[in-house]
Amino acid sequence: MDEDEVRTEAWWGRRAWVLLSAVRARAPLVQCITNLVSMDIVANALLAAGASPAMLHCLREVPDFSPRCDAVYINVGTLSEDWLPSMRAAASAGRPWVFDPVAVAASGFRMETCLSLLALRPAVVRGNASEILALASSSDNSSFKGVDSSHDSSDALQAAKALARSSGAVVAVSGAVDFITDGVQVVSASNGVPMMQKITATGCAVTALIAAFVGADPSDALVAAACALAIFGLAGEIGMESARGPASLRMHLIDALYSLDEQTVTSRVKISLLP
Amino acid sequence: MDEDEVRTEAWWGRRAWVLLSAVRARAPLVQCITNLVSMDIVANALLAAGASPAMLHCLREVPDFSPRCDAVYINVGTLSEDWLPSMRAAASAGRPWVFDPVAVAASGFRMETCLSLLALRPAVVRGNASEILALASSSDNSSFKGVDSSHDSSDALQAAKALARSSGAVVAVSGAVDFITDGVQVVSASNGVPMMQKITATGCAVTALIAAFVGADPSDALVAAACALAIFGLAGEIGMESARGPASLRMHLIDALYSLDEQTVTSRVKISLLP
Amino acid sequence: MDEDEVRTEAWWGRRAWVLLSAVRARAPLVQCITNLVSMDIVANALLAAGASPAMLHCLREVPDFSPRCDAVYINVGTLSEDWLPSMRAAASAGRPWVFDPVAVAASGFRMETCLSLLALRPAVVRGNASEILALASSSDNSSFKGVDSSHDSSDALQAAKALARSSGAVVAVSGAVDFITDGVQVVSASNGVPMMQKITATGCAVTALIAAFVGADPSDALVAAACALAIFGLAGEIGMESARGPASLRMHLIDALYSLDEQTVTSRVKISLLP
Repeated sequence: MDEDEVRTEAWWGRRAWVLLSAVRARAPLVQCITNLVSMDIVANALLAAGASPAMLHCLREVPDFSPRCDAVYINVGTLSEDWLPSMRAAASAGRPWVFDPVAVAASGFRMETCLSLLALRPAVVRGNASEILALASSSDNSSFKGVDSSHDSSDALQAAKALARSSGAVVAVSGAVDFITDGVQVVSASNGVPMMQKITATGCAVTALIAAFVGADPSDALVAAACALAIFGLAGEIGMESARGPASLRMHLIDALYSLDEQTVTSRVKISLLP
Repeated sequence: MDEDEVRTEAWWGRRAWVLLSAVRARAPLVQCITNLVSMDIVANALLAAGASPAMLHCLREVPDFSPRCDAVYINVGTLSEDWLPSMRAAASAGRPWVFDPVAVAASGFRMETCLSLLALRPAVVRGNASEILALASSSDNSSFKGVDSSHDSSDALQAAKALARSSGAVVAVSGAVDFITDGVQVVSASNGVPMMQKITATGCAVTALIAAFVGADPSDALVAAACALAIFGLAGEIGMESARGPASLRMHLIDALYSLDEQTVTSRVKISLLP
Repeated sequence: MDEDEVRTEAWWGRRAWVLLSAVRARAPLVQCITNLVSMDIVANALLAAGASPAMLHCLREVPDFSPRCDAVYINVGTLSEDWLPSMRAAASAGRPWVFDPVAVAASGFRMETCLSLLALRPAVVRGNASEILALASSSDNSSFKGVDSSHDSSDALQAAKALARSSGAVVAVSGAVDFITDGVQVVSASNGVPMMQKITATGCAVTALIAAFVGADPSDALVAAACALAIFGLAGEIGMESARGPASLRMHLIDALYSLDEQTVTSRVKISLLP
C-alpha cells in the first residue's frame, strides 16, 4: 500500500518536516510586497524559518528582481494606489505567488483590487473566513453566491472550494481549524493557539511562510500551504508554553519556529485530509 | 453624596476599569493613520487592550471605511504629503478622532499641517510638553502666546488649557505626570515609568489607546483620555517589574496591558482632579 | 610612547567607551530615512544607545529639519522613487551622513540610485561583502574592477579600500569579522554572533548606530564606525547569553545595548588595526 496515497497524519508530519528542511536548506528568496504593519514580523518569521525575505516594492526594480525570486508574496493590508502597479508586475513575473486579501470587504476599491489581483493566478490565497466568503461571493466566475451572515466555517469551506475552482488557486481559510482546498480535495490543519490572534500580522506572517514553502518546493501548493499553516501554528503552541501574554508569545513563537526539530514536527503537526 | 461629583482616586480607578472592560467587550474598531515607526506597537497595544486596529490610509477607501469605525487615530510622525488627503478625509468622516501632533515644530510644513488638522476638531489631542507648547503658541485662535524656552510643565499646562479652549478638543500633555484638560477642568494621571521613553512610539501607542477608549465610550473624552493614559502607564509599571531594559519592558508592557485585572486597575490607577 | 599611535585593543576599548558615553551624554539627533522593515529596530537601537532618532522623510521638511541634525542616516532597503528627492536633499544638508546601500545589486535602478547617493559624499558607507563588492565594481572612479564571484572577505577588503579611495568615505564591510577602511588604514572589529543575521534589519540598526557615533563625535569617522560596529556586536554577544532564538536575541541585544557599562566595553570590545 502506498502511504503517499493514504496521507495519514504521520505522512503529513513527515511531509511538513521535509518541506521545512527544504526551506532551511534552499533559503528560498521571497519577495514580499506586504502591508506596513507586518513588515517586521513577516521578515523575522521568514528568517527564523530559514527563508530569505526581500521587501522590495519599487516598480522600476520588479523586472530585474522578481524573476530571480523563488516566490512572491502580496498582501493588501495597507493598500495604496501607488503600490498597485508593483503588485501587478510582481504577480505577473512568472514566479509562484501567494496572495493575502486582508480585509477585502473594507471598501469597494479594495474588493476591486483584490479581484484584479486574483485574476493574475496566485498559487495560493489565504484569508480568514470573512475574507474568503467576501471574495468568493464577489468573484464573477465563482459558483458560490450565498453568503451567510453568520460566517460559520462550513459556509467558508464551501466558499473556499468555489473560489479555488474559479480562480485556479489553492485557497486556505484560517481559523481555529484551517481548511485548505484546491476545489476538490480539502485538508484541515489544526495547530495553533487562540492568543495568536492578539498579535498583529500573524496572518500575514503565516501567508509569507506559505510563500516560502511554495518557493522551496513548488510541486504541490496544497501540501505546501497546509504544512506552512501547521508549522506556524505548532510554533505558536510551543511559544505558548513560555508566554505570559501576546508580546511574549510573539517572541517565543519566532524562537520556536527557528528551533523546530524533526521529532517535534513529525509528532505534533496535525493535518488531515477531509473525507 | 454623589461620588461622581467627588471623583476621588477610587472613583477614577473604577472608571478606568469600566472603560477598559468596555474596550474588551465592544472591541472598538479604530482606524489608524499613523507613522511608519509606530505601526507595530500601535496595532499590538490596541489588540492587547481588546480593541480592533485597522491600519488603512488609502484615500479611495476612506469614504467606505472610516464612517464604520468607532474612532479614528491620526499621527503625523512620518508625515508625507501624499497621506494628507486621507488624514483630512478620515478626520472629517464624522467619527470621534484623536490627534498626535508628533514633533509639530520639526518644520514649518509640519506646523501648518497640524494646525489644519486641528481645525477638523479632534476629540483629543495628545503631545509632550514641547509639542503642546509649540502647537498652542502657533494656533491663531489661542489665547496662549508666551512660550517659555524651558518648557516646564506649568507652562505646558497653561498652553494645554488655552489650546483646549481654542480648539474645542481635550488636550493631554504627557510627561512624568500627564495633564489632561478640556480648558476648564484639569486632571493629572501619574502612572508610568521613565524607561518607557526609551521605547520608540510609546507615545503613539498610548494616543491610539485613547482613541480606543473614546471609541468604546464617546460620552466623556476627558475621562477616556485620562483613563487610557493611566492604564498604559500602569501596564508600564507592571512591565518594569520584569524588565531588564527597554526591549523587554516593551514586551512586558504589552503582556501586562493584556492581562490587567480589576483589582490591579482599581487599586493602582493614579488619577486626580486638580483644584 | 603615545598610546594613541599604538592603538592597542585596550586603546580601542577605551575609545569605544568614550564614544558610547558621548552618545549617551549628547543624545545626537539622527535623521533616519530608512527602509520600512527597519523602522522599529533602528529607532529602538538608537534610543537604547542614548541617541535621539527622527524618522522624517518628507521633502518639504528637509530644509527646516536636516540642518539641525547631528547626523543623517540613509538606507535604500525599500527603495521607492518618491523618497529619492528627500534622500538627496538630506544627504546634501551639510551634516555628516551615513549610507547603507542595502541589496545594491538587486536591480539596475537601485545600483544607479546608490551610485548617485555615493556622489553626495557620505562620511561612512556600510554594507556586507556582496554589497561592497558590487558597489565598488560599478563605481566609475573606482580602481577596483575584478569581482570574484566567491565574494570572499579578502576580495571585499580590496573592494572596500578602492571604494573608500574613490568615494572619500570610510567604508565598512560587515561579516563574521567587520573591516573598516578609509582607503589606507584598515581596522577589524570582531564582536558579534552569527544569529544576529537571523534578525531582520540588524545591519540597518548598526549602520544607524554608526550615524549616532559620527553625530556625537564627527572628528574621526573611521574610529566611530569601528566602535559602533564593535559595540553593537558586543550587545549581541551579551544578548546571546540569554537568547533562545532570534526573537529573544533581538530583545536581549537591545536591552544589553542600553545597559553596557565601562568594564564590559573596555574589556570585551575587539578592534584592531591591520598591519
